[in-house]
Amino acid sequence: MKINRLNKVLTKMRENDIHQMLVSDPNAIFYLTGKMISPGERLLALYLNTNGNHKLFINELFPVHEDLGVEKVWFDDTKDAVKIISEYIEKGKTVGVDKNWPARFLLHLMDLNPDSKYVNSSFIVDTLRMCKDEEEKNLMRNASHINDLAMDKLQNLLTKELSEKEMAQSLASIYEELGADGFSFPPIIAYGENGADPHAHCGKAKPKEGDCVILDIGCVKDNYCSDMTRTVFYKKAPKKAQEIFNIVLEANKRAIAMVKPGTRFCDIDNAARQYITEKGYGKYFTHRTGHSIGIETHDMGDVSSINTDTLKPGMIFSVEPGIYLPGEFGVRIEDLVLVTEDGHEILNKHTKELNIIG
Amino acid sequence: MKINRLNKVLTKMRENDIHQMLVSDPNAIFYLTGKMISPGERLLALYLNTNGNHKLFINELFPVHEDLGVEKVWFDDTKDAVKIISEYIEKGKTVGVDKNWPARFLLHLMDLNPDSKYVNSSFIVDTLRMCKDEEEKNLMRNASHINDLAMDKLQNLLTKELSEKEMAQSLASIYEELGADGFSFPPIIAYGENGADPHAHCGKAKPKEGDCVILDIGCVKDNYCSDMTRTVFYKKAPKKAQEIFNIVLEANKRAIAMVKPGTRFCDIDNAARQYITEKGYGKYFTHRTGHSIGIETHDMGDVSSINTDTLKPGMIFSVEPGIYLPGEFGVRIEDLVLVTEDGHEILNKHTKELNIIG
Repeated sequence: MKINRLNKVLTKMRENDIHQMLVSDPNAIFYLTGKMISPGERLLALYLNTNGNHKLFINELFPVHEDLGVEKVWFDDTKDAVKIISEYIEKGKTVGVDKNWPARFLLHLMDLNPDSKYVNSSFIVDTLRMCKDEEEKNLMRNASHINDLAMDKLQNLLTKELSEKEMAQSLASIYEELGADGFSFPPIIAYGENGADPHAHCGKAKPKEGDCVILDIGCVKDNYCSDMTRTVFYKKAPKKAQEIFNIVLEANKRAIAMVKPGTRFCDIDNAARQYITEKGYGKYFTHRTGHSIGIETHDMGDVSSINTDTLKPGMIFSVEPGIYLPGEFGVRIEDLVLVTEDGHEILNKHTKELNIIG
Repeated sequence: MKINRLNKVLTKMRENDIHQMLVSDPNAIFYLTGKMISPGERLLALYLNTNGNHKLFINELFPVHEDLGVEKVWFDDTKDAVKIISEYIEKGKTVGVDKNWPARFLLHLMDLNPDSKYVNSSFIVDTLRMCKDEEEKNLMRNASHINDLAMDKLQNLLTKELSEKEMAQSLASIYEELGADGFSFPPIIAYGENGADPHAHCGKAKPKEGDCVILDIGCVKDNYCSDMTRTVFYKKAPKKAQEIFNIVLEANKRAIAMVKPGTRFCDIDNAARQYITEKGYGKYFTHRTGHSIGIETHDMGDVSSINTDTLKPGMIFSVEPGIYLPGEFGVRIEDLVLVTEDGHEILNKHTKELNIIG
């Protein structure tokens, strides 16, 4: 077990009067044990009790031989795993469960254990996961470093006039060469008017002279995620697209300039949104400014107009304003930003200045 | 709404004394409405009531403009969707929910609606989905037809000595050319000793003369899945491997010969397992004989030694015995079989006889 993280979780459990809980999210179990186990549809749960009596309930199909610092309770497909768990639970006391625990397990546990109150306790681990410790910061820096190198190689391929889909396939090979473990999300590679959809799927389009090219890419390395967007121009940069590019770039920089402990998430969103609105494109900035990131590409915590939580050292999130002109093109520029003790650090280093390729 | 399917669901709800239920599995919603909606982490639910008062609760982020024959209740991210649902639910009466409905929704609904009993009602739609209607049978035949063509093309590529991973990438392009919508599962392409792991991941290995090559592939076409395994030999077929191959092929044929209405799933498993055991390799057949398939690659219903349910016309499942010799090689031969009124139909037509390539 990662003792520092566990102790923080136990403290937060006591503060919230939840003295036992079942952590079933594999990412949360990895966060606490250092071991990523992917159980598919099968039950996997780390039972935590503020009295120190922790257990890991695990199917024999997932042989975890190392000592994780927590006693394992094994079962197989012929056993009723929920019944086994129910025998360990302190009767009558509140039980915390993960936000995504499937109803088939939860309802069964409630039947076996009707006198307990059940609550969604995911916020306990999720909020702690927002503030990365030193080990995590270094893993996040490394994932973003690989992403910088990949962005370079990918931009160089643009001259080969590959389709969006072929670029995405090439990116898979680039990540593999660079030692990444895979995509952190399906890459968005969008040429010209396809970039006007912020969630575009890679298609058969090839780049045309004067196209804005959106490259929104990220990899997983050692269970931590990177995520970066660059918008570049193919062969030439038309005047209107340059104007939009400069607005988005300035919005990105203004938002990042706000990042320090004590700032609210909504203030960062507002810095980008207000500038884009002043320039007359507010209605074309159709999404939130960013999202927290770590073990998952979307960790808990949005950079949005309605999130009034304040930043704390160790938080890492994306800052990714964009302008999308339907039928014309889109521009998005995204960096990952770490909140430091007195300001911020940008994790990816790849240039975001205006860049004409080919 | 697919009225025939809906009426069967409503009948089964009455039989089980569940007069209202929330169907949240996108596959089940597709089965009943004909529309596949992928809500990600957001709430989507089809509320069914035996009194006919059905509703589809759907986020505005997923614009479904067509008339699905059920009234839509729209909400957006600023609304409490569970609260909206709770206002429609008949108080005090049992509420069925899907097996995978996340705890964050279920616990919230229970708080708002404490007087209802909540039960896992997925079996109602899942058991009906096991027996395909004519429309579904044709879609399943079509997905398997594409898979036949893809298997041909893939086997021809083997002579190029591509790595397992490169073969998998090529298969993605083959499916695209053939008009499939994607993989139904990550393909298993395993050379030589890698094939001794039934769930092998495609790696960097290249084929060596005399290798058994496992090709376990499937595509999705129009929301229905195919799945087929062929084991072929590269350049030559060593004597021991031929012997194992013939045992698995015979086990596959014996199991399929059992398929007709009234046979039990466990009898099919037993036909394959008993033959392999007689030949001395029982302990190397380490998995169940098959699984149901349809809208999902793994639908409800295993072909396993413990499933005593009997076959009904319209059921479709895989028959895929295998023998896995650690450090040596593996052989698996898999077909999809449809239960007809008086026997069976094998959906895939690609030859499964001994085949030496290159």
